[in-house]
Amino acid sequence: MLLLTLYVIGITAEAMTGALCAGRKHMDWFGVMFVASATAIGGGTVRDILFGHYPLTWVANPHFLVITCVAGLITPWIASWVARNYKLFVTLDALGLAAFSIIGCRVAMDMGLHPLICMVSSLITGIFGGLLRDLICRQSPMVLHKELYALVAFVTGALYFSLIRLDVGELIATVASLVIGFGFRMAALRFGWSLPVFRFEAPSSLH
Amino acid sequence: MLLLTLYVIGITAEAMTGALCAGRKHMDWFGVMFVASATAIGGGTVRDILFGHYPLTWVANPHFLVITCVAGLITPWIASWVARNYKLFVTLDALGLAAFSIIGCRVAMDMGLHPLICMVSSLITGIFGGLLRDLICRQSPMVLHKELYALVAFVTGALYFSLIRLDVGELIATVASLVIGFGFRMAALRFGWSLPVFRFEAPSSLH
Amino acid sequence: MLLLTLYVIGITAEAMTGALCAGRKHMDWFGVMFVASATAIGGGTVRDILFGHYPLTWVANPHFLVITCVAGLITPWIASWVARNYKLFVTLDALGLAAFSIIGCRVAMDMGLHPLICMVSSLITGIFGGLLRDLICRQSPMVLHKELYALVAFVTGALYFSLIRLDVGELIATVASLVIGFGFRMAALRFGWSLPVFRFEAPSSLH
Repeated sequence: MLLLTLYVIGITAEAMTGALCAGRKHMDWFGVMFVASATAIGGGTVRDILFGHYPLTWVANPHFLVITCVAGLITPWIASWVARNYKLFVTLDALGLAAFSIIGCRVAMDMGLHPLICMVSSLITGIFGGLLRDLICRQSPMVLHKELYALVAFVTGALYFSLIRLDVGELIATVASLVIGFGFRMAALRFGWSLPVFRFEAPSSLH
Repeated sequence: MLLLTLYVIGITAEAMTGALCAGRKHMDWFGVMFVASATAIGGGTVRDILFGHYPLTWVANPHFLVITCVAGLITPWIASWVARNYKLFVTLDALGLAAFSIIGCRVAMDMGLHPLICMVSSLITGIFGGLLRDLICRQSPMVLHKELYALVAFVTGALYFSLIRLDVGELIATVASLVIGFGFRMAALRFGWSLPVFRFEAPSSLH
Repeated sequence: MLLLTLYVIGITAEAMTGALCAGRKHMDWFGVMFVASATAIGGGTVRDILFGHYPLTWVANPHFLVITCVAGLITPWIASWVARNYKLFVTLDALGLAAFSIIGCRVAMDMGLHPLICMVSSLITGIFGGLLRDLICRQSPMVLHKELYALVAFVTGALYFSLIRLDVGELIATVASLVIGFGFRMAALRFGWSLPVFRFEAPSSLH
């Protein structure tokens, strides 16, 4: 129930940031809904396709799709408010990231997948929404360039997986992973933590 | 049978527009066949992957893939004729869009999916070919920016779904949806109908 | 066993070329691992998703994913060595291409798919890694523009398929396809073979 609430908050916040991105590219209302939905539920969709985990969440529960489309469609009217309160959205997005990571790990565990794949599942669920948004909007994929985002998802998943295996109980595992994952992401933002960057200037003959 | 004929016309027309796009990017013959096929059968492929609906149409019936490759390969020889008769292709594409929408809705209904998902299935089948083409050719995705395309697919699917539920019979539902979907698309082109556009100029710190 | 060895060599070489590409785009270490893995195992992943062939190789055997991530991560330290020895990598990549093509054909044959689809499976396995790399790195997809790459994969698959159907035995079919596929690719590189290019300069009103 806690996780479902955070999931809905997460997809709403992600849908709105996706819609802003569509607005920056001057898309029409359909484009706005499309990018909003891809950003919000793209991560879980890619994960389920990679694992052959059918039916997809939004196919079985179309109201999630309605939420992301509505969140996308109202964004044009509240865009300046969203822009002024971006810190709020960054916070909601961090909450959503932690929730997505736990859900992704849970799905892979329920399928009996390898521990490493459970953590990769957290990562995929956490990052692919933003990655799809950036590919569709034709901008450099943020999550591959800077900011601690993928690592937060991976660590949150690893923590949740370990706590469940240590038999601390579903609730404690969920709350602890949420708090630590959320705190990790917010700390990374505040202190500007990031991974080292690989710069390679290649002769043009190499590809 | 009618639907199959329109499907073949639709994938042929879409393959040719995809091939023209590949030609504008100076791709080689393989690139031409690849973009042609992705444009023509990409929509149904994405739909079937999202719904876990296997085997894919072109895997079970490889002759559809042969059709799109051949249509792509002959495009370089008839490119100037195609360019001069673009109105014909726009018409065939509109026919194909209506046919794709009905087929997409049919597939989802046969799988027993939620009514909203059946209409979304029409939309996915109708738009994802062009979306993949634009992503592969690295150009702004037309269908997210302007023109009534996605809405036509959605409305055609909604109409077909409703008529089937109203028990008017398969043939009447198909023909009525085809005629109205096709007419809606052609009217949208002629009168320049489009959805409102969301323009958002963001401070660069937002993403 | 031979094929497994070549597969590991192939994914290692492809992961390193993917990592170099990520370095040219100034990605961080996660981006490097991501692009490396997508380049190396993206082809097999796309093939298995298109055919509904679950579980994916790297989901069932996560050590392949570990190999590509490690190969990606060490690339920054050996980048100048890799760049100086690019001919070695081109050779390993050609070996990997032949191995990928045979594996792709084998998977499709084991699923009882149509002969043409078996050859298309070789092609998909061979090219989609590089295609995903280019899409993620936002550069023109090499394989659609020049160089004989897709055709090599297709021909290697066709040869393997024919030899198996001629009952020459698994080992002979594999070795012969490897040698000829590898030789074909190296010859194409050395002699600059390529497919004809389709150039089409369109009036801007066409799309």
